[in-house]
Amino acid sequence: MKLTVVGAGIGDPELLTIKGLKALQQADVVLYDALANEALLDHAPNHALRIFVGKRRTVKTSTQEETNDLIVQYARTHGHVVRLKGGDPFVFGRGFEEMEYARRHGIEAEYVPGISSAVAAPGLAGIPVTYRNLSRSFWVVTATNSDGELSADLELAAQSDATIVVLMGLSKLSEIAAIFKRYGKSDLPAAVLQNSSLSNAKHIFGTVDTLEHQLDTLRTAPSVLIFGEVVGLDVRRALEGLIVEGRR
Amino acid sequence: MKLTVVGAGIGDPELLTIKGLKALQQADVVLYDALANEALLDHAPNHALRIFVGKRRTVKTSTQEETNDLIVQYARTHGHVVRLKGGDPFVFGRGFEEMEYARRHGIEAEYVPGISSAVAAPGLAGIPVTYRNLSRSFWVVTATNSDGELSADLELAAQSDATIVVLMGLSKLSEIAAIFKRYGKSDLPAAVLQNSSLSNAKHIFGTVDTLEHQLDTLRTAPSVLIFGEVVGLDVRRALEGLIVEGRR
Repeated sequence: MKLTVVGAGIGDPELLTIKGLKALQQADVVLYDALANEALLDHAPNHALRIFVGKRRTVKTSTQEETNDLIVQYARTHGHVVRLKGGDPFVFGRGFEEMEYARRHGIEAEYVPGISSAVAAPGLAGIPVTYRNLSRSFWVVTATNSDGELSADLELAAQSDATIVVLMGLSKLSEIAAIFKRYGKSDLPAAVLQNSSLSNAKHIFGTVDTLEHQLDTLRTAPSVLIFGEVVGLDVRRALEGLIVEGRR
Repeated sequence: MKLTVVGAGIGDPELLTIKGLKALQQADVVLYDALANEALLDHAPNHALRIFVGKRRTVKTSTQEETNDLIVQYARTHGHVVRLKGGDPFVFGRGFEEMEYARRHGIEAEYVPGISSAVAAPGLAGIPVTYRNLSRSFWVVTATNSDGELSADLELAAQSDATIVVLMGLSKLSEIAAIFKRYGKSDLPAAVLQNSSLSNAKHIFGTVDTLEHQLDTLRTAPSVLIFGEVVGLDVRRALEGLIVEGRR
């Protein structure tokens, strides 16, 4: 009777860790959501149940409470439950809550870290989150709090020299850009990154001022926004200011 | 003729990605430093050269310039160079500089993300860097800039509600704590984390006020400092306020 919360990484199934792979190979049940690459399910044994618990747009098929209950029920009836979550389970993933819930019900719970889009998506797009003498820190923020309001952290973030990485922020890009502009950072390099580890990667490079006007061709998809001087490091690319498609 | 900069993860050799494993298996030369687990070298083929390029305390055996040159020379003479770096290569790792240098010399360069201690060390110590309604962002900072001065980002970080993760900061703990105290955060939960993924893990939990006085038994080693309400999440452990040894 055990729960293993596994970070699935950011799309490319080879960005799973060896430890995550071994957990999947020993799973009796895999609970996965939309952000985990479904190819990873092939690592689970034939007998393992594969259950989708992601949040769909139209109908909330699985609330967090339902997922918590499923974990406990399946651990009791089937043994080893692997909860596969996109990125790292503790980066805005509610993985800790699921582990707490399992433990309160007497179920052992383990965490297996995953590659987070906060660092790896910029990296795969050619943007290091830190760079000597240019960025000495990076700050990872969600666009909105649980009430759907713009995160108060963004106000302070826009005043810092940190590289700012915003997860789940595409629909709020105009409001986020407005905050940076208020602090005189219209010309700060910025980018929108989608599917950075996959062959259909889409990366748009611009500035705080231009980025929101460059989104015409961008489909709605999980996106990483990044603001900071490090975005301009690849000067040739920054001068082009164009959409970069395909794996880098 | 190729360079692959691979994130080695944070100690446990199973925290390497499958992609990183495959790169090692196809290496002709592996350049590694002290932060990468040497067990990972076993994945390289028998014929592959294994070269230590880490910085030693007493003698600077390899400067960054020397490492850059080694990458280019070995790529030319041997083919595929894997540069194995602890954590993620772009988190204070200078991995991007090595890729830039290689590309300027006509050598293809690829980045393979790694598990960073910034997120995974807290996670393995039972601390999620984000938690609903408690921490909506996390900020990853080094203690000092390249001149050895305390990072200016820390001043702003201490004023934010973000979870603050400080890498390479153990020797500056008193000065960092002083900044948090100046902003009325003496009671903010804080922790020092070492070897979090290994059986000799050492984790000390306290507050901004108490932490520096709890370090007597702590050996000098690469450490992650973390400040924020999320550190107090595991209530039982926080009440004990004691050193936690061993793998969690």
